[in-house]
Amino acid sequence: MPHIELAEDMPGITAGFAFRPETAKPMRELAHILLHTSGNEGFSSRDRELIASFVSSRNTCYFCQSSHGAAAAYLSGGDANLVDEVCRDFRTAAISEKLKALIAIAEQVQIDGKRVTKELAEEARKRGASDIDIHDTVLIAAAFCMYNRYVDGLATWQPRDTAVYTQMGKRMAEEGYSAPSAVP
Amino acid sequence: MPHIELAEDMPGITAGFAFRPETAKPMRELAHILLHTSGNEGFSSRDRELIASFVSSRNTCYFCQSSHGAAAAYLSGGDANLVDEVCRDFRTAAISEKLKALIAIAEQVQIDGKRVTKELAEEARKRGASDIDIHDTVLIAAAFCMYNRYVDGLATWQPRDTAVYTQMGKRMAEEGYSAPSAVP
Repeated sequence: MPHIELAEDMPGITAGFAFRPETAKPMRELAHILLHTSGNEGFSSRDRELIASFVSSRNTCYFCQSSHGAAAAYLSGGDANLVDEVCRDFRTAAISEKLKALIAIAEQVQIDGKRVTKELAEEARKRGASDIDIHDTVLIAAAFCMYNRYVDGLATWQPRDTAVYTQMGKRMAEEGYSAPSAVP
Repeated sequence: MPHIELAEDMPGITAGFAFRPETAKPMRELAHILLHTSGNEGFSSRDRELIASFVSSRNTCYFCQSSHGAAAAYLSGGDANLVDEVCRDFRTAAISEKLKALIAIAEQVQIDGKRVTKELAEEARKRGASDIDIHDTVLIAAAFCMYNRYVDGLATWQPRDTAVYTQMGKRMAEEGYSAPSAVP
């Protein structure tokens, strides 16, 4: 049962968004920029969704981990194993050295921004990360510390049916987050 | 030294915002709605800034704690002691029982959203909090878990001169956060 009166049958963050459309708008926009429109060959939407799912798994937010994990899997040609690997041990996962170095930064941000060291940033740059890549990694990790706490702090309904997330992830990956009906 | 090439002489979050105006826009808007335009007699901007400063103190983010603390102090007629009291022990501070119950919710969100209990929400309602008050408290606490990690994760410059924050807090309290020159 949610802690406040949220619309029934709306999963996770969508219930909070429907309750307060004023705050939903910038929260959607931020996700849309960070995960959807900023993706490029060097730091793709797939990679960004992997970071979102990884941080959500560290924050044990079932809804965000599942939905963004499904988006990342969809963008990996349906490879859900990759998402599990990254969440379990990103250092041995089948991802680029650059992405590993960025996730190592996200891993520290999830605990405390002050744990990001000059060495971690240097290592990411050595692996080909630009300043914008590092900036966006820090902000994706920081933003999911917000989204996760919002979803869990309201005690939203988080369906346990995997098929729900598969469909959600496909829509998120294809359409992004800016439409009022989208699920960030 | 910041981890990426940020403009010199821009304190805290303003440096990140100048580096990436696309993400700055929704981050500013969210702060503007939550802290500035949603304030009302029952849950004022002063109270909201106190929660922002309290959460930032728990995340040991010097820049955000100082700037939002200064905004709260300005809105309390210059009473900086009140901010210190709230950060030290909000349960004995000279604030309403309703605000204490809301800060008790924010205190748990800062650690993990799942720690907010039905009892904490019930207690806040008993002290006069509405569902929107509880929603906004959860989201302010969650959002500062983002802002704090962003400021610290980039290793931004955080001035140690109290007078800088006093002036910043006055401007934040008076003008809010939506203008590109504002300091959230």
